[in-house]
Amino acid sequence: METQGKPIRCRAAVCRKAGEALKIEEVIVAPPKAREVRIKIICTSLCQSDVMVWKLEGPPGIYPRIFGHEAIGVVESLGENVSEVKEGDTVVPTFIPDCQECKDCLSEKSNLCSKFPFSISPWMPRDGTSRFTDTKGEVVYHFINVSSFSEYTVVDVAHLTKIDPSVPPNRACLLSCGVSTGVGAACKTAKVEAGSTVAIFGIGAIGLAVAEGARLCGAARIIGVDLNPDKFELGKKFGVTDFINPRDCTNKLSEVINEMTDGGADYCFECVGSGSLVQEAFACCRKGWGKTIILGVDTKSQLSFTSYEILHSGKRLMGSFFGNYKPKSDIPVLLERYINKVFLILAQLELNLDDFVTHEVGFEDINKAFDLLLAGKSLRCVIWMDK
Amino acid sequence: METQGKPIRCRAAVCRKAGEALKIEEVIVAPPKAREVRIKIICTSLCQSDVMVWKLEGPPGIYPRIFGHEAIGVVESLGENVSEVKEGDTVVPTFIPDCQECKDCLSEKSNLCSKFPFSISPWMPRDGTSRFTDTKGEVVYHFINVSSFSEYTVVDVAHLTKIDPSVPPNRACLLSCGVSTGVGAACKTAKVEAGSTVAIFGIGAIGLAVAEGARLCGAARIIGVDLNPDKFELGKKFGVTDFINPRDCTNKLSEVINEMTDGGADYCFECVGSGSLVQEAFACCRKGWGKTIILGVDTKSQLSFTSYEILHSGKRLMGSFFGNYKPKSDIPVLLERYINKVFLILAQLELNLDDFVTHEVGFEDINKAFDLLLAGKSLRCVIWMDK
Ligand SMILES: NC(=O)c1ccc[n+]([C@@H]2O[C@H](COP(=O)([O-])OP(=O)(O)OC[C@H]3O[C@@H](n4cnc5c(N)ncnc54)[C@H](O)[C@@H]3O)[C@@H](O)[C@H]2O)c1
Ligand SMILES: NC(=O)c1ccc[n+]([C@@H]2O[C@H](COP(=O)([O-])OP(=O)(O)OC[C@H]3O[C@@H](n4cnc5c(N)ncnc54)[C@H](O)[C@@H]3O)[C@@H](O)[C@H]2O)c1
Ligand SMILES: [Zn+2]
Ligand SMILES: [Zn+2]
Ligand SMILES: [Zn+2]
Ligand SMILES: [Zn+2]
Repeated sequence: METQGKPIRCRAAVCRKAGEALKIEEVIVAPPKAREVRIKIICTSLCQSDVMVWKLEGPPGIYPRIFGHEAIGVVESLGENVSEVKEGDTVVPTFIPDCQECKDCLSEKSNLCSKFPFSISPWMPRDGTSRFTDTKGEVVYHFINVSSFSEYTVVDVAHLTKIDPSVPPNRACLLSCGVSTGVGAACKTAKVEAGSTVAIFGIGAIGLAVAEGARLCGAARIIGVDLNPDKFELGKKFGVTDFINPRDCTNKLSEVINEMTDGGADYCFECVGSGSLVQEAFACCRKGWGKTIILGVDTKSQLSFTSYEILHSGKRLMGSFFGNYKPKSDIPVLLERYINKVFLILAQLELNLDDFVTHEVGFEDINKAFDLLLAGKSLRCVIWMDK
Repeated sequence: METQGKPIRCRAAVCRKAGEALKIEEVIVAPPKAREVRIKIICTSLCQSDVMVWKLEGPPGIYPRIFGHEAIGVVESLGENVSEVKEGDTVVPTFIPDCQECKDCLSEKSNLCSKFPFSISPWMPRDGTSRFTDTKGEVVYHFINVSSFSEYTVVDVAHLTKIDPSVPPNRACLLSCGVSTGVGAACKTAKVEAGSTVAIFGIGAIGLAVAEGARLCGAARIIGVDLNPDKFELGKKFGVTDFINPRDCTNKLSEVINEMTDGGADYCFECVGSGSLVQEAFACCRKGWGKTIILGVDTKSQLSFTSYEILHSGKRLMGSFFGNYKPKSDIPVLLERYINKVFLILAQLELNLDDFVTHEVGFEDINKAFDLLLAGKSLRCVIWMDK
């Protein structure tokens, strides 16, 4: 490419202040350094994790910043010492790394790289600097190793997964965060058993991806809890069998679920980001074997349990970060379940990606994606960079 | 038996007041009611759970009471409708039931019977009354469904496991609580993997039974933490490889363990009964896959974790009540590993029961068992009823 080794001027949706509409600006994207890759984003989608941090005035909120972490792109150029991908490859960036060197990345059991420990960092992971500047020469910050709300971005090779280019980009990008997280939480973290009962607190995209995972594992009953009744119709497409709106309950939510499941759900997933919902989830998780799995990001809440209730209830508490999946090995496998759906459809083992995409907009309209998610109208709104 | 259907007058060690020495008194043991069995205790041993409740002035402390729940006995007579055991059978009573009827007892996954939910109850489980009276006709209370500090006791059939009578009673009684709990916590709850690192907080009998379980699972390194340095020599007999006395540490215990394990132990077991030790255990449990397992009974402590650390650490929190074992099916299997030790010894797969018995006394000297455990001198002190 003739741009290789040179800065690229392009459009990015920059957030200049917490909670403010993004502004499409011209930015300069420096060439990738060693073990980094510059990619041209094809499309990106908005996740609640972008919105959560976008609202924060204080740390880890920091501005000007380029948000976005669910995306797909094409490799434009490589920094030194990159052999895993080449120019023109189709790649999915991920907020979690897979360095393929450290004890965690080499282990079957962990997806929490110890070489590049995750944080809501504004920098590139390897050298702790930014590749973005604005036209005045000021630094523009990164967002969790991706920053996909830009026509071009630089991503560390540890955060890139090469995929089959034939997958429609507005489907493949979902594997970059939300769908992988939810499906993995059900299939890998919780290992949902066939015939079991699952309760999902919050059925936005993450919660419905949990439902999709639970459905694929053969769950018999999937209870969706949401304050927004519009989610109930959407939920049916992902196998949700029962719906509860906490606003309609006269009793505590956990009591309602304990009642309707005759003693609790086998698996409870928190997909909102609320400590008090985690406590409710734990309270209606089946004694003896129930698992409560935290997916929602809540950086403030303190959870409280008595030591005796953990000892004596037989319930297990755990989190699921990116569904315990390892991006480089698990994303291609998940995509197979979408690509080969014609073969899987009869067995109902195909991965439903289509129904997650409720809206699509051009880059200029990126703020609409925020409005839709904030209003609870979208699951995923895909933002096309060239439209 | 000629005593069948009649009350039996016998000796029992009665506790008349919290924290006071037991008194050997004459008590009257009523005949067993339906689904109950009266057994003649052969020998019993003292567990920290007896001592913990014995210290309590308020509920669940209640007096006069007959403590004791680790024991072995012989069936003297049956109440109506008991076919599982017969007169003369050798049995091990357990504080947890196995009703073999409810959803939990029928499930592979749970050992928390829902027909007779566990509580530190002073009554028989099925009809909520006592079988003990003193010579003045006053009720004497039961202790967690066993009350083995009596020559005769009545136990619900759900709480009895029939065993091979050839096992030495002063070994078999250990399976009634302590050894099963610890071995099960390692082998069944945590499923310790070969080659892994285990940290055990408190290496009394329960902690060392965890070590024994971890050793049988092939753990490579077993770190024992105890305030009492005398436990370190004992620990070596159960495969403990490293010892830490928190009193010798200048840094926080969790920091010391994180350092010596290069990032945390794969499994951390709390075997003291202290909420703050649970927090320390969680803090030095390996990110990505570590499990923290609570065994110690602490009825007061509140545990506190941030929702974000559970989500993001990949660590799992759980309890282990009676090692997740189901008494009727698992105790006989464990005993096999002791009985057939000659065949297993070369492979180091024999269950070491012998070294748990550090002391033996006659019934008259039962208070010595308390003194020894309180002074940290014994693991298990076996109390022989007829000596
Ligand atoms: N664990 C991970 O790796 C990971 C990855 C991505 C996102 N997340 C987190 O997952 C959470 C969900 O993300 P999303 O993109 O699905 O968001 P979303 O906005 O699409 O979905 C959240 C849903 O929760 C519902 N809700 C809000 N408050 C509720 C309450 N009190 N009770 C019941 N329902 C309630 C909303 O109506 C909405 O439907 C966020 O916290 C996000 O940061 C975690
Ligand atoms: N989960 C279950 O099913 C179950 C069953 C039986 C017993 N228990 C509980 O297990 C615990 C241990 O019982 P045990 O019979 O082994 O008792 P024990 O007295 O033999 O052992 C406890 C050990 O902890 C050590 N210790 C005390 N405070 C400590 C501290 N702050 N730091 C490090 N070590 C410390 C003591 O020196 C002792 O060696 C008790 O709480 C008991 O109630 C649980
Ligand atoms: Zn996301
Ligand atoms: Zn790594
Ligand atoms: Zn005990
Ligand atoms: Zn039962």
